[in-house]
Amino acid sequence: MKLQPLADRVVLEPLDAEQKTAGGIYIPDTAKEKPQQGKVLAVGKGKTLDNGQVAGLEVKVGDTVLYGKYSGTEIKDKDGSSIFIIREDEILAIVK
Amino acid sequence: MKLQPLADRVVLEPLDAEQKTAGGIYIPDTAKEKPQQGKVLAVGKGKTLDNGQVAGLEVKVGDTVLYGKYSGTEIKDKDGSSIFIIREDEILAIVK
Amino acid sequence: MKLQPLADRVVLEPLDAEQKTAGGIYIPDTAKEKPQQGKVLAVGKGKTLDNGQVAGLEVKVGDTVLYGKYSGTEIKDKDGSSIFIIREDEILAIVK
Amino acid sequence: MKLQPLADRVVLEPLDAEQKTAGGIYIPDTAKEKPQQGKVLAVGKGKTLDNGQVAGLEVKVGDTVLYGKYSGTEIKDKDGSSIFIIREDEILAIVK
Amino acid sequence: MKLQPLADRVVLEPLDAEQKTAGGIYIPDTAKEKPQQGKVLAVGKGKTLDNGQVAGLEVKVGDTVLYGKYSGTEIKDKDGSSIFIIREDEILAIVK
Amino acid sequence: MKLQPLADRVVLEPLDAEQKTAGGIYIPDTAKEKPQQGKVLAVGKGKTLDNGQVAGLEVKVGDTVLYGKYSGTEIKDKDGSSIFIIREDEILAIVK
Amino acid sequence: MKLQPLADRVVLEPLDAEQKTAGGIYIPDTAKEKPQQGKVLAVGKGKTLDNGQVAGLEVKVGDTVLYGKYSGTEIKDKDGSSIFIIREDEILAIVK
Repeated sequence: MKLQPLADRVVLEPLDAEQKTAGGIYIPDTAKEKPQQGKVLAVGKGKTLDNGQVAGLEVKVGDTVLYGKYSGTEIKDKDGSSIFIIREDEILAIVK
Repeated sequence: MKLQPLADRVVLEPLDAEQKTAGGIYIPDTAKEKPQQGKVLAVGKGKTLDNGQVAGLEVKVGDTVLYGKYSGTEIKDKDGSSIFIIREDEILAIVK
Repeated sequence: MKLQPLADRVVLEPLDAEQKTAGGIYIPDTAKEKPQQGKVLAVGKGKTLDNGQVAGLEVKVGDTVLYGKYSGTEIKDKDGSSIFIIREDEILAIVK
Repeated sequence: MKLQPLADRVVLEPLDAEQKTAGGIYIPDTAKEKPQQGKVLAVGKGKTLDNGQVAGLEVKVGDTVLYGKYSGTEIKDKDGSSIFIIREDEILAIVK
Repeated sequence: MKLQPLADRVVLEPLDAEQKTAGGIYIPDTAKEKPQQGKVLAVGKGKTLDNGQVAGLEVKVGDTVLYGKYSGTEIKDKDGSSIFIIREDEILAIVK
Repeated sequence: MKLQPLADRVVLEPLDAEQKTAGGIYIPDTAKEKPQQGKVLAVGKGKTLDNGQVAGLEVKVGDTVLYGKYSGTEIKDKDGSSIFIIREDEILAIVK
Repeated sequence: MKLQPLADRVVLEPLDAEQKTAGGIYIPDTAKEKPQQGKVLAVGKGKTLDNGQVAGLEVKVGDTVLYGKYSGTEIKDKDGSSIFIIREDEILAIVK
């Protein structure tokens, strides 16, 4: 199954703790809004602006991104793995 | 009876669990906002933007889409089957 | 008495249950927001957009439409029959 | 005293029950938001849009209109008669 | 001290009851939002619109206006007299 | 330390009571929102409008202004003196 | 790990008290919203306006800025040091 997100939405695969450690980032338990790392699997065409123009997304398929842990909608595949659909505006940064 | 939804609304026929399993997707009971699969039966002309332009919809008749279970308005046909009228913005993704 | 609704408002005559059965649609009692069928008696000129353009309505006089039961303002004629004045955005779909 | 309402405001003289009966309209006591009939005494120049254009009003001096009973601001003349200043957007329809 | 109000603000000197009676207007004690008469002492340049244009005010210095009694900010001069700074949108009408 | 406020923000030095008396203005204790006088120390470049244009501020460095006492953010210098950073929209008027 | 913030976001390294003292600024404990100093490590491309234009940020990498202490999202590096991702609109001023 492949998902084509609508408008300014993005499909993400969350990266687990080990991958996060490899990336050198650590999220404290005390953080108000815990950001999480994920890999971009698919991106929407972008948001339609008031002038009819569609503003493409900044993130691209394959990017590793930081996003709020409780943003978006979780979907589980048959094997139990999770993916998330979130709006690009809920993504904080691209991890380079 | 045929329905022509207004503006950026979409008429959906929800797909039952079996079809969902066939599509390979599984929605966990613990999900905050349970997304559901549906088939697009009719689409509106689109939303009128501030410049008077009408922004057509991304989804087309026949698309299978993921949408929030509690979005939209349910309508029952005489045979008891349900259809939903929802705004396109409440559709998360097209299932390919 | 004839009413010319302002802006994006529409004057509707609600269709009773019998007519609804004839149209083949059935609204379950359990629906969160019960949609109702009505006949369009008059339409406004449309909403003035930010660029000064007036966006005409999609519905026309004579259309049968689905709308939320509790939307709009009820007005009773001397014979006790009701009409409703609602904004077009509260109309879900045109019944064809 | 003459009032020149600002922007998209309208000065109305409410029509009493007798006049309403004459006009053939009857407002049920059970209506959520009781509409009321009034006569337009003065209209503002219109609302300034985002592009600087002023959108003139649809209602004209002399029109009989339906408006929400609890909208606007009441002002009493020395003889005890009331007039109302309301925004045009709170007027539902012109009675023809 | 002279005040130059910013943007779409207006400086008003409230007119006392006697003057109001002279003008022929009477505000009932039961009014939800009691309008009050005042004299315009100074006006701002106007609100900056989304297109960068500045929309000048409708009211001019010297106008007598009706405004909501509890709108704006009261400032007292050394002699104890009050003036008010309010946004033009809170002014209901010009009294002619 | 010098502060360059961002966008439509302004850096103010509050003027104390004595200076206020000199200026002839008196703020009653009973005022809902107590306005206060201050001197403009620095101004931002202005707010970016929807069309990309930057709308410069009306207030200039050196202006004495009236602003709401509880607006903005207080910053204390080493010597204990306070300055405030507030948005221009919270400034009521320029005192001339 | 390097972070490229999205849209109008900024990555900041908070400056500790000693550095703040050096800079001559002191934030009182009684301040409602305690501003804090930080150094800009990375800036987003800017916010997409309604006309499709991207409005670049005012702050640049290397700037010392004042921001609200509780704004943004904290991220901890492996060595325990914190960085913050915040929107430029939450930055009050550049410290020169």
